[in-house]
Amino acid sequence: MVDWIAVDWGTSNLRIWALDADGNVVAEKRSDEGMGGLEPAAAEGVLLSHIEAWISDKVMPIIACGMVGSRQGWQEAPYNTTPTAPIQNAIKVKTKDARIDVRILAGIKQDTPADVMRGEETQIAGFLASRPEFEGVICLPGTHSKWVEISKGRVMQFQTILTGELFALLSKQSVLRHSLGTWDDRTFTDTLKDTIQAPQNMFSALFSIRARGLLEGDNVGIARLSAGLIGCELAGTTHYWQNRHVVIIGTGALARLYALALQAIGQKTEDYRASDLTLNGLKSAYKEVFK
Amino acid sequence: MVDWIAVDWGTSNLRIWALDADGNVVAEKRSDEGMGGLEPAAAEGVLLSHIEAWISDKVMPIIACGMVGSRQGWQEAPYNTTPTAPIQNAIKVKTKDARIDVRILAGIKQDTPADVMRGEETQIAGFLASRPEFEGVICLPGTHSKWVEISKGRVMQFQTILTGELFALLSKQSVLRHSLGTWDDRTFTDTLKDTIQAPQNMFSALFSIRARGLLEGDNVGIARLSAGLIGCELAGTTHYWQNRHVVIIGTGALARLYALALQAIGQKTEDYRASDLTLNGLKSAYKEVFK
Repeated sequence: MVDWIAVDWGTSNLRIWALDADGNVVAEKRSDEGMGGLEPAAAEGVLLSHIEAWISDKVMPIIACGMVGSRQGWQEAPYNTTPTAPIQNAIKVKTKDARIDVRILAGIKQDTPADVMRGEETQIAGFLASRPEFEGVICLPGTHSKWVEISKGRVMQFQTILTGELFALLSKQSVLRHSLGTWDDRTFTDTLKDTIQAPQNMFSALFSIRARGLLEGDNVGIARLSAGLIGCELAGTTHYWQNRHVVIIGTGALARLYALALQAIGQKTEDYRASDLTLNGLKSAYKEVFK
Repeated sequence: MVDWIAVDWGTSNLRIWALDADGNVVAEKRSDEGMGGLEPAAAEGVLLSHIEAWISDKVMPIIACGMVGSRQGWQEAPYNTTPTAPIQNAIKVKTKDARIDVRILAGIKQDTPADVMRGEETQIAGFLASRPEFEGVICLPGTHSKWVEISKGRVMQFQTILTGELFALLSKQSVLRHSLGTWDDRTFTDTLKDTIQAPQNMFSALFSIRARGLLEGDNVGIARLSAGLIGCELAGTTHYWQNRHVVIIGTGALARLYALALQAIGQKTEDYRASDLTLNGLKSAYKEVFK
């Protein structure tokens, strides 16, 4: 009944889908056994522990994406270089167990300016599977946001900004953690516009969040912090989004925030859900790699 | 023999000097009993435990500065508002022990843009004690860097940037911690100039440090990170330093870095040692408050 297996194996999480011959999901598993906490030699056993029940006497095709293919992963899948199709040159893993045929998708690198992605290329492939004619820009908000220019089904260039990681550090561990208060959309959009116009002032605006909390009882620090960081990201990526067709691939509150930000500065956006797209990308890869 | 006592009581550290009638230091103590780890009610006991041997039957004058005067400190010393002399309106602490007369120096606030300092005003007073005619700008690098405009002995305006805190978080806890490598002056000054010209690109330049490490074996990430952060600080404070007389008050490597940065962009600087200035500022305050 299980025809092949799709795996999204990141630094923190492992997600596994069992699919039938028509591409329907017949079972799904999630685990926190991310690659970040595993030795490469342990990966095969972890995977088998989740999929053992689905394996019969026929060799099981498995497609995996994410940090599982990094230098510290199960086996390194060298980067493709821009411009490139999002999926290309999957590597075949040397497994001990002969009942599984595991292929890991390569990430994408850009030489100038130096940049890398691993995992997002599969989401992009999933998006392009349903929108093969898409010309424009994909924004993937997250710990490390990506802006990706797409043309003729290829990744032409991209840019990574560690906005999400900065937000986590500043909101949880800096002096600003005392001044977050509650969310406010209007403060967010106003501060965002100010930041895009004068991004060089973002750093002093950050401490100002603390000072306003102390002196004025200001209680919307979290909206100011988000706007400062996302505003700085947008100020540095104007060549990606200005007068372009922008698709946001993300989940929940963060995707909503980027849509709100881009709308506030007059850009229309479309939203796609990231988790669906990863599976769709793995389905595209399966057809390309195993057929 | 001890005529009065000077205290620098910050979030993390406590420093105490015993002075004679001529202002000479006759004894000195340091402790890690910063206000950050103390309840307000515990402050008097902690101070007495260090100075007991110096107290006789005469009431001992004590001047303190720093977070000891914050809302979470021993007793709040409300801020003076810019423009203001650096030292003004010390508060008298209600002590249980009648043998000590403790005065805490007020910090300084600025209403627009909102900003605060507490502790730096004493270093500024110490600097102005030896340079009463100074007209120009003082830069105090640190966890929270301060840029301070001085005219006619007063703090006219100032700006805080949390550069040091961002550096600590990014270098120790972000993905960049894997890509720090070793220091290089030339990389620092080159990257600094690029950042000042295009601060909106700083965010993507940060991730680029990681990508260059991965793809090119680049090994000077720490110089790139410092330059990105200090460059962004300088880009947002041009109205303070451009064509101005700038004095740097700081210690060690960080003060050297700011001097290197400002020199690289054609600004001359003078350097003063921060610890000497705090004591000098407390001496000025003593004369003002107790005489």
